[in-house]
Amino acid sequence: MSKTDAVLERLDKGLDEAIERLFQLVKIESISTDPAYSEQCRKAAELLAADLGSIGFDAKVHKTTGHPMVLAKHHKQPDMPHVLFYGHYDVQPVDPIDLWETPPFEPSIVETADGKKQLRGRGTSDDKGQLMTFVEAARAWVDETGELPLNVTILFEGEEESGSPSLPAFLDAFKEELKADVALVCDTGMWDEDTPAISTGLRGLMGDEIFIQAADRDLHSGMYGSAAANPIHILTSILAELRDAEGRITLDGFYDGVHEVPEEIREQWRELERGRPHMLSEIGLSVPAGEKGYSALEQTWSRPTAEVNGIWGGYQGEGAKTVIPAKAGAKITFRLVGDQDPGQIRASFRSFVTARIPADCTVEFKENGGSPGITLDHTLPEFQKATTALHEEWGRDTALIAMGGSIPIVGDFQKVLGMDSLLIGFAHADDRIHSPNEKYDLKSFHKGMRSWARILQALAE
Amino acid sequence: MSKTDAVLERLDKGLDEAIERLFQLVKIESISTDPAYSEQCRKAAELLAADLGSIGFDAKVHKTTGHPMVLAKHHKQPDMPHVLFYGHYDVQPVDPIDLWETPPFEPSIVETADGKKQLRGRGTSDDKGQLMTFVEAARAWVDETGELPLNVTILFEGEEESGSPSLPAFLDAFKEELKADVALVCDTGMWDEDTPAISTGLRGLMGDEIFIQAADRDLHSGMYGSAAANPIHILTSILAELRDAEGRITLDGFYDGVHEVPEEIREQWRELERGRPHMLSEIGLSVPAGEKGYSALEQTWSRPTAEVNGIWGGYQGEGAKTVIPAKAGAKITFRLVGDQDPGQIRASFRSFVTARIPADCTVEFKENGGSPGITLDHTLPEFQKATTALHEEWGRDTALIAMGGSIPIVGDFQKVLGMDSLLIGFAHADDRIHSPNEKYDLKSFHKGMRSWARILQALAE
Repeated sequence: MSKTDAVLERLDKGLDEAIERLFQLVKIESISTDPAYSEQCRKAAELLAADLGSIGFDAKVHKTTGHPMVLAKHHKQPDMPHVLFYGHYDVQPVDPIDLWETPPFEPSIVETADGKKQLRGRGTSDDKGQLMTFVEAARAWVDETGELPLNVTILFEGEEESGSPSLPAFLDAFKEELKADVALVCDTGMWDEDTPAISTGLRGLMGDEIFIQAADRDLHSGMYGSAAANPIHILTSILAELRDAEGRITLDGFYDGVHEVPEEIREQWRELERGRPHMLSEIGLSVPAGEKGYSALEQTWSRPTAEVNGIWGGYQGEGAKTVIPAKAGAKITFRLVGDQDPGQIRASFRSFVTARIPADCTVEFKENGGSPGITLDHTLPEFQKATTALHEEWGRDTALIAMGGSIPIVGDFQKVLGMDSLLIGFAHADDRIHSPNEKYDLKSFHKGMRSWARILQALAE
Repeated sequence: MSKTDAVLERLDKGLDEAIERLFQLVKIESISTDPAYSEQCRKAAELLAADLGSIGFDAKVHKTTGHPMVLAKHHKQPDMPHVLFYGHYDVQPVDPIDLWETPPFEPSIVETADGKKQLRGRGTSDDKGQLMTFVEAARAWVDETGELPLNVTILFEGEEESGSPSLPAFLDAFKEELKADVALVCDTGMWDEDTPAISTGLRGLMGDEIFIQAADRDLHSGMYGSAAANPIHILTSILAELRDAEGRITLDGFYDGVHEVPEEIREQWRELERGRPHMLSEIGLSVPAGEKGYSALEQTWSRPTAEVNGIWGGYQGEGAKTVIPAKAGAKITFRLVGDQDPGQIRASFRSFVTARIPADCTVEFKENGGSPGITLDHTLPEFQKATTALHEEWGRDTALIAMGGSIPIVGDFQKVLGMDSLLIGFAHADDRIHSPNEKYDLKSFHKGMRSWARILQALAE
């Protein structure tokens, strides 16, 4: 039996204990966004550090201005490659609590009607379950062979769900210690429950808020309606003009730096779309709403967009109130791809808005972050090795997907540490992350560990 | 000395006592919209009925399903005309309380920097101060001459500020008792502090709410942005399309029944606008926002409009949230003039919206009331008599104005009682009704009483 096979067998035999260890971690209420749970975040970090210490890592909990970081090293193979694994131990809040079928921090195994087993509880998928797939793979390697096949540094963050305020300073301070040949990030999903996936692109983001002021006070809409500028009308006109009839964004220079996806990748995506029910049908929709000429998958994976995330103005209570409000506003995020420049797009957006504000009204803006899109190099040797290892575990080709969202740490690894990332995760679209009744399929957890066990070996070769 | 002059002299001499009586009424916290103040509403009604009883009215407090009505009759001149006077004793809430310079229910006289005296307190203008101008005029007539020059019925309502839910049933039940030659309504303003005004038109109102649903849940705007329909985008496009570049409403048939104002009235309005600082400058604006080709006054007094009174969707808290909401909505009121039909306009609006909802999204509507515009007959003899009386008091021609808002009771008097109204009031645009630091100029109160004393005599002739 090869070393890898022995490690895999150990993982199979030890599954119950692995679940138990995950559940110990899930029981800790490490909600990062609410200061009331700071102590629980510290406990989660300490549990992880102790666990990693028990399998030979040199593991430390590092204080930050926010929640602590866990930094752990297992560097015992001087001539072998070095990987950095990243995950986060913090979780989302649990509201609305009354929609949970089981208490969020009392994890349990639930068998569904079709006989599938799910691990239930906040964080079982995002990201405690996912990060434990890697820890369990490392444990099995150490327990079975006394070593890891290559050098591993682990970084567990406790602020991913609350904007990672302490991360940039930490990356900067620990730059040298964190630098590795490649980063492994386990915070993403599979294509479907049988098809592993690696992401090759992430959309960037540019966020801005608009506040439009018209009259110096709220007005009676009977007395003033028509003559007095209504900031809701100004706002809705501006937002409507932001898109043309083809679904394209009308800002000057918006498409500068947007590249068409190579035809062979596009063809692969079309193949993926043919094999799975329409991504929109899962959310009760059927018509791709974005740019004409692109499928729903292409729209989210490769095309930029402008999404209004919030709009407000005037009276929102029950019944009617005949008011023309003094102010109205909206929050908007642009999703960016390729070489689109967040700064240039912010400037273009603000000129676009400002040019449409009547002479007697004013507008203010507030910046809500900006980072460019990321393209990961799928020609890296590590990428090929991981793909092969995943094929061995799942018996299927790995889907090369892209992600509509941003994972800022991946940009930081590129920018600060000059390091590409492999985004490999085992979550599913129906895991209800950030929602009540979060779950992680037992199959994801089990075959996820096995996948990492194989990838560790593959990257060592 | 004529009877009228003696009555006027009595009003001048008794001004301090009249203020004291008004202040007793203002001290009662008769906020109709908040059930916590029901008892105070009852007290205000009882105080008024007792006061009217003391000057010879047959005054009764009538229970309703809401706050009580005061109905009082002084019918001692069998051959003389009969007028119905209407006012309301309820007031608006006082929030935000911390912006009041004096406590809202502790009325006081404040002298401004330019030496003008103001009565301060919630309801001093809207409508306790205004209705007491009529009561004091009646008192002076009775005290001076032992009688009123004509037959008077008074109706004081206690739910005007909360939508008058009990009024229609009451009007219907007391139809015969309320019927008079003309109604006098004191709930409006002057053109400026020296120029009395009578309103000849009121805009109607049709209110509707829209709720647009796209996906069956809130979505992550990174994962789904562009492909998934965003209900805020749908909503803002629809609202933007509701107006064309000329500021006209684009609904089918919207302008059916809208009549141009006769040139002589338009010329009078232009004259008024020349004589007073721009109505928009008082509220920090300068550009008439409505239909091109009409002045600000014409837009509010004679042209219909569609005003969004409230809009909501997605995240409205601090900072950013990358969400595509499942739902978004807006509240809208159409202001109607001439013979525009609220029902037809609602139907046209709903088709307009429905035609613009993507195939995989849905829309629901909720009705928020509807009443047509009202045109009052300025050729009535009572109208001419009142105009002359006002000229005698103020030394100026009465401005024939229109009102952008609705006063539903005026429509009810027309529809239910077949009776036209004279809208005569002494409020000013800067009275801060519905806002902190409500005031009524002492000059309005004093010359308002004197005006009614003259009008009572004029209408008896």
